[in-house]
Amino acid sequence: MAIKVHGSWFATAPMRVFSCLNEKGLDYEFVPLDMRAGEHQKEPFLSLNPFGQVPAFEDGELKLFESRAITQYIAQAYSDKGTPLISKDPKEMAIVLVWMEVETQRYDPPASKLTWELGIKPILGRSTDDAVVEEQEPELAKVLDAYEVRLAQSKYLGGDSISLADLHHLPTLSYLMGSRVKAVFDSRPHVSAWCADILARPAFKKVVAMRNNQ
Amino acid sequence: MAIKVHGSWFATAPMRVFSCLNEKGLDYEFVPLDMRAGEHQKEPFLSLNPFGQVPAFEDGELKLFESRAITQYIAQAYSDKGTPLISKDPKEMAIVLVWMEVETQRYDPPASKLTWELGIKPILGRSTDDAVVEEQEPELAKVLDAYEVRLAQSKYLGGDSISLADLHHLPTLSYLMGSRVKAVFDSRPHVSAWCADILARPAFKKVVAMRNNQ
Repeated sequence: MAIKVHGSWFATAPMRVFSCLNEKGLDYEFVPLDMRAGEHQKEPFLSLNPFGQVPAFEDGELKLFESRAITQYIAQAYSDKGTPLISKDPKEMAIVLVWMEVETQRYDPPASKLTWELGIKPILGRSTDDAVVEEQEPELAKVLDAYEVRLAQSKYLGGDSISLADLHHLPTLSYLMGSRVKAVFDSRPHVSAWCADILARPAFKKVVAMRNNQ
Repeated sequence: MAIKVHGSWFATAPMRVFSCLNEKGLDYEFVPLDMRAGEHQKEPFLSLNPFGQVPAFEDGELKLFESRAITQYIAQAYSDKGTPLISKDPKEMAIVLVWMEVETQRYDPPASKLTWELGIKPILGRSTDDAVVEEQEPELAKVLDAYEVRLAQSKYLGGDSISLADLHHLPTLSYLMGSRVKAVFDSRPHVSAWCADILARPAFKKVVAMRNNQ
């Protein structure tokens, strides 16, 4: 099998890559890393990603890291397979790129901190730091105010159809919708409908099922 | 003139867009915002960027924000003009995308905090918080250790020729090379040579000259 993903089913960044591969209907080999034992911080993994974070990705001779670079590669290199996740039109793609950057720069910082506190720490048997939650929840709410305006104009962030701009949110979204922060999404009707829509995609439900079966 | 950039010559994100436009040899209109008066946090600017940060960008009817989305649009839409900054080959482009993500996810967080403390605050007549500098400098050094390994294998981050992966570093790099943090770059020979090379590009020197003439 040509495509390999090194990582874990629990970490959000590998989940981003799995959901993209599933949307494209591509087969891949999962190479598990024991992150509790710190395998991602040691060789041979550091040769795949010098920053010691999952996932790392192989497609034949090509070796990549950084989940959002990997999804862009998959969307481009396998553009003729499965769900189109990027646009060939530079102006349409520009809007997708804007909202991909918004996810990275605005949504992800509070969403990742909240996911760690409310989603990952409980799995690891560690306690949530409520001060972090209280600080980050209003930050996330501010970002979602802008999403509510955007999603009132457009079914998906990047336009009329799903794109990487939506897909990149899924891993943190799935953890947060199972936490007490869910109310921040539910209180914004267009955000809430968008969450329900993208979380229900079979390609992502397969990722959650794999995570839940571990 | 079709292309407009709303922003300031001092802020790093508009500088990223100006350097890209100059590499492409494109004409543009600069629309200054009085950021000290908070114009970027008010209408009409918020209609261009709901997150209230510079730059905003217009190319005819198309309106964009987020500097790294704007540079990708420019590189794609004007691929036949000036310096090529992206690759049409998905595998080559994947490596460029990896290092674009590294800039965003690893380099920029410490580099931006250090730029604010050591580059922007002095311009605004405010004093540097040395505790922030002491905390962020080792973070930047760790990232540059990985850059040193990469730049020993490859002249530029994304491959043999300059790309957006290099260009996105220029604004913070130019502030930091004029600060006491310069030593962190200079002590790594491949990083130091790369900095000298990309900072010397005429397209970027024009941006610095515009900033210094304000």
